[in-house]
Amino acid sequence: MQLAMVGLGRMGANIVRRLMRDGHDCVVYDVNQDAVATLAAEGATGTATLADLARELQTPRVVWLMIPAGLTGGVVDQLADVLEPGDIIIDGGNSNYRDDVRRAAALKPKGIHYVDVGTSGGVFGLDRGYCLMVGGPDEAFARIEPILATIAPGRGEIERTPGREGDFSPEELGYLHCGPSGAGHFVKMVHNGIEYGIMAALAEGLNILEHADAGIHQAEHSAEVAPLEEPEFYQFTIDTPKVAELWRRGSVISSWLLDLTAAALQENPTLEGLAGRVSDSGEGRWTVKAAVDTGVPAPVLAASLFERFASRGEDHFANQVLSAMRLQFGGHQELPAGDVLEAGGRKADT
Amino acid sequence: MQLAMVGLGRMGANIVRRLMRDGHDCVVYDVNQDAVATLAAEGATGTATLADLARELQTPRVVWLMIPAGLTGGVVDQLADVLEPGDIIIDGGNSNYRDDVRRAAALKPKGIHYVDVGTSGGVFGLDRGYCLMVGGPDEAFARIEPILATIAPGRGEIERTPGREGDFSPEELGYLHCGPSGAGHFVKMVHNGIEYGIMAALAEGLNILEHADAGIHQAEHSAEVAPLEEPEFYQFTIDTPKVAELWRRGSVISSWLLDLTAAALQENPTLEGLAGRVSDSGEGRWTVKAAVDTGVPAPVLAASLFERFASRGEDHFANQVLSAMRLQFGGHQELPAGDVLEAGGRKADT
Amino acid sequence: MQLAMVGLGRMGANIVRRLMRDGHDCVVYDVNQDAVATLAAEGATGTATLADLARELQTPRVVWLMIPAGLTGGVVDQLADVLEPGDIIIDGGNSNYRDDVRRAAALKPKGIHYVDVGTSGGVFGLDRGYCLMVGGPDEAFARIEPILATIAPGRGEIERTPGREGDFSPEELGYLHCGPSGAGHFVKMVHNGIEYGIMAALAEGLNILEHADAGIHQAEHSAEVAPLEEPEFYQFTIDTPKVAELWRRGSVISSWLLDLTAAALQENPTLEGLAGRVSDSGEGRWTVKAAVDTGVPAPVLAASLFERFASRGEDHFANQVLSAMRLQFGGHQELPAGDVLEAGGRKADT
Amino acid sequence: MQLAMVGLGRMGANIVRRLMRDGHDCVVYDVNQDAVATLAAEGATGTATLADLARELQTPRVVWLMIPAGLTGGVVDQLADVLEPGDIIIDGGNSNYRDDVRRAAALKPKGIHYVDVGTSGGVFGLDRGYCLMVGGPDEAFARIEPILATIAPGRGEIERTPGREGDFSPEELGYLHCGPSGAGHFVKMVHNGIEYGIMAALAEGLNILEHADAGIHQAEHSAEVAPLEEPEFYQFTIDTPKVAELWRRGSVISSWLLDLTAAALQENPTLEGLAGRVSDSGEGRWTVKAAVDTGVPAPVLAASLFERFASRGEDHFANQVLSAMRLQFGGHQELPAGDVLEAGGRKADT
Repeated sequence: MQLAMVGLGRMGANIVRRLMRDGHDCVVYDVNQDAVATLAAEGATGTATLADLARELQTPRVVWLMIPAGLTGGVVDQLADVLEPGDIIIDGGNSNYRDDVRRAAALKPKGIHYVDVGTSGGVFGLDRGYCLMVGGPDEAFARIEPILATIAPGRGEIERTPGREGDFSPEELGYLHCGPSGAGHFVKMVHNGIEYGIMAALAEGLNILEHADAGIHQAEHSAEVAPLEEPEFYQFTIDTPKVAELWRRGSVISSWLLDLTAAALQENPTLEGLAGRVSDSGEGRWTVKAAVDTGVPAPVLAASLFERFASRGEDHFANQVLSAMRLQFGGHQELPAGDVLEAGGRKADT
Repeated sequence: MQLAMVGLGRMGANIVRRLMRDGHDCVVYDVNQDAVATLAAEGATGTATLADLARELQTPRVVWLMIPAGLTGGVVDQLADVLEPGDIIIDGGNSNYRDDVRRAAALKPKGIHYVDVGTSGGVFGLDRGYCLMVGGPDEAFARIEPILATIAPGRGEIERTPGREGDFSPEELGYLHCGPSGAGHFVKMVHNGIEYGIMAALAEGLNILEHADAGIHQAEHSAEVAPLEEPEFYQFTIDTPKVAELWRRGSVISSWLLDLTAAALQENPTLEGLAGRVSDSGEGRWTVKAAVDTGVPAPVLAASLFERFASRGEDHFANQVLSAMRLQFGGHQELPAGDVLEAGGRKADT
Repeated sequence: MQLAMVGLGRMGANIVRRLMRDGHDCVVYDVNQDAVATLAAEGATGTATLADLARELQTPRVVWLMIPAGLTGGVVDQLADVLEPGDIIIDGGNSNYRDDVRRAAALKPKGIHYVDVGTSGGVFGLDRGYCLMVGGPDEAFARIEPILATIAPGRGEIERTPGREGDFSPEELGYLHCGPSGAGHFVKMVHNGIEYGIMAALAEGLNILEHADAGIHQAEHSAEVAPLEEPEFYQFTIDTPKVAELWRRGSVISSWLLDLTAAALQENPTLEGLAGRVSDSGEGRWTVKAAVDTGVPAPVLAASLFERFASRGEDHFANQVLSAMRLQFGGHQELPAGDVLEAGGRKADT
Repeated sequence: MQLAMVGLGRMGANIVRRLMRDGHDCVVYDVNQDAVATLAAEGATGTATLADLARELQTPRVVWLMIPAGLTGGVVDQLADVLEPGDIIIDGGNSNYRDDVRRAAALKPKGIHYVDVGTSGGVFGLDRGYCLMVGGPDEAFARIEPILATIAPGRGEIERTPGREGDFSPEELGYLHCGPSGAGHFVKMVHNGIEYGIMAALAEGLNILEHADAGIHQAEHSAEVAPLEEPEFYQFTIDTPKVAELWRRGSVISSWLLDLTAAALQENPTLEGLAGRVSDSGEGRWTVKAAVDTGVPAPVLAASLFERFASRGEDHFANQVLSAMRLQFGGHQELPAGDVLEAGGRKADT
């Protein structure tokens, strides 16, 4: 079927390629006309404006947006002016599901359907397919299902879950209609919240492995920090990159994020050059806020988010307050940077 | 080669089967002689005592223990009496790595090698192979490597990590010599600590999905608990089992633990019958203690452990103290059980 | 000066009493006319409607609301109809500071000032005074300062902070103009967030003391839960109520919340009758959301909030998921309730 | 009565002064003979060796050690050689309670009593008195009670807990016999664990206040970090030092640690010069390990400890791993330091 793609960054462009490979007809637009030209050369129909795009499409139209969340609102408004009742706008970006709820309500009087599609798969999606979490009206979902089926991974080689039989259901093919508008991005949001937690679990564990040699460095310990007890039990120099590779094989924690970790450590065993200032893109925050709103305990997901904040120095004033209190009640002076960083048995590289 | 297995529970028996399939010669022992008879019928050499076992084996002997951690110390002592210099004892159970360090030191004067093998793979290992984390002297590792190679998953169908070329290294075949005695169980301990964190991330996320309908149940809210703000954003009734299945396909969080979650929810979509009292078997505790000892922040791993403690009611007195304080400073009465449990929009089943 | 109080619950009534004791003139209103009659008998001017109240007051009027946060919006709207430019509405309840920002903006065109006053002090404020965190325009703050000075604790017997000299500043008297509308409730919100953290720290610590006898109960341990290591170090039967009392004297953690804890344990040493289902009234949630919004790590404040959610059973589904995974990968069965609860060395009373 | 003090640092010297003020007879020793001379000039009996010290004392002797925990074991051994059956050794330092249990058992055959006294009060104890948590045999406790009563704060001006009547019990005077050897330091350990939690709650809350102006700095936000949502709600420039002072007056969170925070912020409102590398002295670690051992959830206490570890850079490798994963799955580059640190609306000073 025919689809328009607005936004031809890495993900948008690869989704177009995956659709064209499967025989779909793609009309494309991006403010960067070079990106348009590139895909036009690969077989898509390029357009120069959103109005052009609308003209090129057969009605009822289907327009997929794959643009930064901050721009989505404006582009939806512009599209609303050039589209007609019965058309479908799909937001495949990383929008807050609350915006979906608002936008779907705003478009309803115009008869334009709004579908939110949480899209996971990163840079590997072109070949691997994308996991699609869809929110929106039944009618619109039914209409775009052929597109979703192409973008999703499909049956693949994954072992079927015991107890599932007969035809493959959509969720087994990698796409799911999760509920009304917003439900897709809600499920994607929680997916990313979980991702933060899994990433943190792996990172904390590997950090412990890196410190398994603390007993060897014990002599360097400073007086102000609690000494390592029983250094005889921390005499291991673990080859962390090899362990990450090992755990991919038959262990309970085998996972795609572990695969990526093993690849990263294979490429750069000491992770030299990485400053360890970890960004976050919003979904982790929204997940914690949703947990707070609904009264669900989420200490692991919250802790993983807060570790990222702290990695960027946002714990600085709090730590100064702690040092200030210690100075007040016990006269404890802070150690110079070098000394303290040796305390765990290693020097940080900053 | 020849190996003796002591302990023929699910894991011990399956390791023996996997070894025999690959042509190794197995001598077996268990206090439960029925288990011995079963494996003898499948081709192993059954024995009735540890002394028998020692007599059946060619020297230098290799004896693998696959018994509950609490019994390992005693059995090692008994074996030490019937074994000879040059023999190898392998502890494949879930021992604390500190016990390995102590046992290896105690056996050294007798010339008996001690090798600890952290073994992951659960009930699926017979077919899938076991991930093996090995600690001990180089010489002993070299001697038992053929056995390890058989028990491990081997090359399998897992995609090779980019950058790895040529012959497969041991870690790519599913076993790794991590360091001296204790290093194997240390790495296994951290593996399990990570496992707790990943499990908790998945469980917390799914719990948020389950509460995505909180806005629908809002009317039932009680006065004593903070009301749900903006109930219009919590109107989703998510089919959690389908979402778990979906995420297996192309998503960033695809993992073996997610596969198992999807299987569990397929089998029992509401998880009815499970009380939610979550056990822990020690490694998560040791991991947190190792993090504390070495000064490594592990908030996610610790939180996942503490959630298990709380699931078993061990937070009870602390919660009573909180209620008692609230009563003191604000005259706040606790709500009856039924009312409070409705607060999140649902009734707990207990 | 003259003040109207709307809402004569415990806090509203006590603030009126504290004001009258200091010679202020109070006009009062409550939907419960009995409460009005009670305070009229103590010297206040009772009124039957908000319109009456407006008529009784000299202009420019000052009206203090001390009502449940859920009702504030409606009452502010009603008051806006009977007040005039130059009048001041004070919200002394536990509103979300975001509502203050919205309400102040809505009242501005009418020339009515809006002041938010975060009020801490609980049931003890009548004698002890209330700590007042104030947001709103300078002009309005200046006008109501005499009232604030009376309601606040004043100089009291608290030792002066080293380095402070000369006249007492407002914050030393117990009230502070924190910034524009919303700033008062923002500071109060964070105050309560901190309160949750301190309460949790005390509760967790006392719970550890309660379990210091775990080694004595060790024999009762079950097989499915990790056994207590080194039971010889957990042989203490601590008298927790006495310890709480002790810590009030000269210790670093002496605090008003500890005073209350000691009082609660003096009254009911085993806390029998408390179910341990801990309510939360919103500020803790808003604090965590503010931390998330502004990228500030707040693991302690978040954990203390999540413990309350879990105390109300909102971790139930997550725990079922954990048990379900354990069953899948290891065939681990959940223990019957009684057995597991004994695991920590004690039986929970539910 | 007569007491020997070994270790004349700030706390040891002040305890001697407090005892002499109350008429007790003090014999003192320190490796630093200047410290001995100083106290001798104030009325104590100075000694040059532990053997001298033993000779100076009437039997049965009472010797109080106030030395760094790392040295206690050695000094106890030396003392054991010069003391006699019936003598008492008191460890008033910050020993791990497990060492008390071991030392008491070792001294028992020699007939020497061992008493552990957890001592809280910091640099203010000389005037304020010290909170004393005591472990040891009943007989020894009874013998040293007059000393304890002097060192403790005594009745003071603290309001009596409701329900307590008649004679003041020891815990109301500031000392308590908590149980057998080790119980004193166990209770002190938990006290310090709670202290970490309270400190962290205050520090996190004040950090949120510091970021209440995030909306004003919004323009500086970078693309890689989630933008601040609803900046209109983060427009407050809070005077944190004044708020800390305010909260001392009538608020629920008034506490000695808040008093110290207010003093620190009065002295240095921006906390300039503090690097925010927060030390820890062991008790927080032992508390978390005790919680883990006994199966007690302690997420707040653990999080407060882990924040300190992270403040010293011990989260570095974990954060590098997170950045490495993000690079793998999404091609996300780390931002340069300056950009990221601006993200929260402020520049860190390092």
